[in-house]
Amino acid sequence: MSALAINTDVGEGFGVWGPVDEGDLLDQVTAANVACGFHAGDPDILRRTCEASVTRGVAIGAQVSYRDLAGFGRRFIEVPKKTLVNELLYQMGALEVFARLAGGRVSYLKAHGALYNAAAHHAGHAEAIVEAVTLYDRALPLLCQPRTVLWERALAAGCLPLAEAFIDRGYTDEGLLVDRSAPGALVTDPAEAARRALEMAQAGTVTSVSGRTVRIAPDGGGVAALCVHSDTPGAVAITAAVRTSLAGAGITVTTPDDIVREGAAAPRTGARP
Amino acid sequence: MSALAINTDVGEGFGVWGPVDEGDLLDQVTAANVACGFHAGDPDILRRTCEASVTRGVAIGAQVSYRDLAGFGRRFIEVPKKTLVNELLYQMGALEVFARLAGGRVSYLKAHGALYNAAAHHAGHAEAIVEAVTLYDRALPLLCQPRTVLWERALAAGCLPLAEAFIDRGYTDEGLLVDRSAPGALVTDPAEAARRALEMAQAGTVTSVSGRTVRIAPDGGGVAALCVHSDTPGAVAITAAVRTSLAGAGITVTTPDDIVREGAAAPRTGARP
Amino acid sequence: MSALAINTDVGEGFGVWGPVDEGDLLDQVTAANVACGFHAGDPDILRRTCEASVTRGVAIGAQVSYRDLAGFGRRFIEVPKKTLVNELLYQMGALEVFARLAGGRVSYLKAHGALYNAAAHHAGHAEAIVEAVTLYDRALPLLCQPRTVLWERALAAGCLPLAEAFIDRGYTDEGLLVDRSAPGALVTDPAEAARRALEMAQAGTVTSVSGRTVRIAPDGGGVAALCVHSDTPGAVAITAAVRTSLAGAGITVTTPDDIVREGAAAPRTGARP
Amino acid sequence: MSALAINTDVGEGFGVWGPVDEGDLLDQVTAANVACGFHAGDPDILRRTCEASVTRGVAIGAQVSYRDLAGFGRRFIEVPKKTLVNELLYQMGALEVFARLAGGRVSYLKAHGALYNAAAHHAGHAEAIVEAVTLYDRALPLLCQPRTVLWERALAAGCLPLAEAFIDRGYTDEGLLVDRSAPGALVTDPAEAARRALEMAQAGTVTSVSGRTVRIAPDGGGVAALCVHSDTPGAVAITAAVRTSLAGAGITVTTPDDIVREGAAAPRTGARP
Repeated sequence: MSALAINTDVGEGFGVWGPVDEGDLLDQVTAANVACGFHAGDPDILRRTCEASVTRGVAIGAQVSYRDLAGFGRRFIEVPKKTLVNELLYQMGALEVFARLAGGRVSYLKAHGALYNAAAHHAGHAEAIVEAVTLYDRALPLLCQPRTVLWERALAAGCLPLAEAFIDRGYTDEGLLVDRSAPGALVTDPAEAARRALEMAQAGTVTSVSGRTVRIAPDGGGVAALCVHSDTPGAVAITAAVRTSLAGAGITVTTPDDIVREGAAAPRTGARP
Repeated sequence: MSALAINTDVGEGFGVWGPVDEGDLLDQVTAANVACGFHAGDPDILRRTCEASVTRGVAIGAQVSYRDLAGFGRRFIEVPKKTLVNELLYQMGALEVFARLAGGRVSYLKAHGALYNAAAHHAGHAEAIVEAVTLYDRALPLLCQPRTVLWERALAAGCLPLAEAFIDRGYTDEGLLVDRSAPGALVTDPAEAARRALEMAQAGTVTSVSGRTVRIAPDGGGVAALCVHSDTPGAVAITAAVRTSLAGAGITVTTPDDIVREGAAAPRTGARP
Repeated sequence: MSALAINTDVGEGFGVWGPVDEGDLLDQVTAANVACGFHAGDPDILRRTCEASVTRGVAIGAQVSYRDLAGFGRRFIEVPKKTLVNELLYQMGALEVFARLAGGRVSYLKAHGALYNAAAHHAGHAEAIVEAVTLYDRALPLLCQPRTVLWERALAAGCLPLAEAFIDRGYTDEGLLVDRSAPGALVTDPAEAARRALEMAQAGTVTSVSGRTVRIAPDGGGVAALCVHSDTPGAVAITAAVRTSLAGAGITVTTPDDIVREGAAAPRTGARP
Repeated sequence: MSALAINTDVGEGFGVWGPVDEGDLLDQVTAANVACGFHAGDPDILRRTCEASVTRGVAIGAQVSYRDLAGFGRRFIEVPKKTLVNELLYQMGALEVFARLAGGRVSYLKAHGALYNAAAHHAGHAEAIVEAVTLYDRALPLLCQPRTVLWERALAAGCLPLAEAFIDRGYTDEGLLVDRSAPGALVTDPAEAARRALEMAQAGTVTSVSGRTVRIAPDGGGVAALCVHSDTPGAVAITAAVRTSLAGAGITVTTPDDIVREGAAAPRTGARP
């Protein structure tokens, strides 16, 4: 319970619609979820983003998605499981080239958007993610929400799921994210985000929009990763406040890889002792 | 001069427009130019094609292209050199995953369609190919036509260009391919193709449509690779006849890798002694 | 009950993956469901297909789809209703240009693949189709299956749904198509198809794979359109046999437009008297 | 010489990469070059942009492009002339639907990016634009630069080219735009832009970066249209200053349609008396 990764989505532009400068946020996180070209990201952006990440010692993760540039990967697509496995592998391989060129490597996996959401309950797509990571490199940590189908399938397959929570988003009583259009969807006050992050990390709980304490981590621990969205107003300041808060509590901020290597991480990652 | 690779384009479908069964032709060649998704090829096809190649001991080459599904990579695109480098790397990385899964690896590079043609004279795009292979793995052979800008740039950069000729296509007096719509564009008689292949391999020359003997290999040798198109009528029979003819002359048919490993290959590949 | 349209999907290629020659089948049908570029079809194909249709007096229908070239429109995509409306309008407008150039016009609408299937039960997507046709031209007939959500919404909106059945496919006891991978999925015997078509047209029923008589038309009538798939083996011969059979029974084969113009068509199209 | 159109590019986003609010600039122009989906623009954006234009009485023009989302239509593509004609028609038809829905119509054509530049000298692509507009509606004005191949082909075909100049860009001694990366490429001072616009409109000349007076209109007149780029800093203020300046000189600002309808416009549009 002494180390956490902080991740954020990066490289989510396409062509002239490049991502804005992400350097300030990359300075605050330890893990960059790099878009691989299926919902966003083109080869130029992949290269620049990998270089910006490695330069800062930030781990590169494959942020894989449904094939959906027009919808930014935010629409569920009923793609056959077998095809989805291959689409994820394709994305990981493409990203790997640029990670290696920059002096790093793809060191974890995280699904994007609709695939992330679907994998929480859609067995076929959860299994596709698990199969893709298993075929690619079973030792890669997989960032996902605990208490989901993906989490269970990953554990069952001997993979390394890493429990994550969102520091800039409100939660429902069911432990789900509040819809972006509803009140309480965003947490933008740095001090509040810092308090919540500490609770997520230490107790594995969060105070929902209705004021209840909700468990969002595996039993017996806190989460292993915190996610912040680059488009949340004040994302850099929020993340900085969270880091200060974690440091004050003696919690190290590090890469997903490091989390997995620690024995103590087991309950939060699903790794068997 | 005792070994040659025979290559063909494979995996050039997309979605439901899958490639026809390519097994019979794969049985005859030693090198499969696998489409990587930019002019053709989707993740399912890449996987199947890599498996079909490795099963037969056929080397997997990255058949890289401009980003142009609608035009099948047959239209020149004035993409900036820097972007082209990254687009080629992206394709190679994506293919590598499936080559590895199948038990093989990407072991050479060959440009497709308009990029192949442009690289013969367009310095920027020739340099992009050379830069991509250099960044990816300089030891990868690069199939291309000798006496072109790409050939020269590859040599200058210390890469391994491998001279190739086409056994099913007519040549002009200038050593270029006869336009597909002109008379003499295709060579479909197996016996004639076999005779021509032998001349290409041994003398490095071809008889043009006007009856002249034209040099199409580097000085002092034959070509190191022969290409056959899967859509040429009778491609399987043509290739089988060529193999018989080469075998009769004591010429081994092998992978691009093996060609490069032979010292004797030097003049045909541009490798310095 | 004296007139029927026979429709088929055409123009479903893309780039070099052009459709095979469809002239023979177009000679047999009265309505061409032309792919509009979202699941298949590029501008060249749209133009050629519209010309081939108008030349034969075949009505041009917009075969609209989810945006999904990679999946040929066969995967459900949870696109927002508002976006789907606009995507359908975009496709109809693009097709209209080529229909007009060829001397015809877009004269009906039919959803393709996964959208066709989804609209049978997914209220949002059924409504999107109805809204698109209403905004474009409410007088356009809409080919669809009766007893579906799309059928009901189209009727409620004052549109002109036209009941269709499939002459080359087996039906379940529920009146649904037998899955393509299951026994009885295809009906390829011309004589049997002809018998079935007559029953569909006259009685509005079909004999299911289990031998039961199942109603597949609106109450009190037969279907108003029959569909044949170009990739069904022997599609041309099957359709010819169906036409002979219908002619023998005094049933005219004509365009969707004509069906709608007939007063007698009302029960089969949902048009109010 | 008493009326001018002012045009700007709009709707150039894609998916989540939507265009910023363009209302303020639309308030200042009379002609909106709407992206049609090939270099930018998706159906949702097309619809919104058409509505925003019609609401303001701004004419809708089809801003047609090479098929190149990844390159934003900024890369020359050697697409066959026949295919290009059809691609342009496809785009115009798609846009027409949304223009009509909004209560307007596609009332002129303007090529985008690399196609605009290529058409100045590439005969095949210039002819493709002329053929597309002729097939679609020969009465549609075509915005382009005079003294180019496109201008000449349009005149020869009896089309209505409308001479345009750029109020926010520097010109070379040859009457070409200064490269965006060179000094003097942008004109951002409203007062200077206003002075230049008046000279363009009245004399048909501009002062080049080297201080020479260069003719940029057809002989015997000024230009008929002025273009401003939405991404030029201060574009709204620049355009407002230009309008004030034109008004002071008794020059009306109106739509391309109106320009063409005036007899006096002939020399500037190429229309024969």
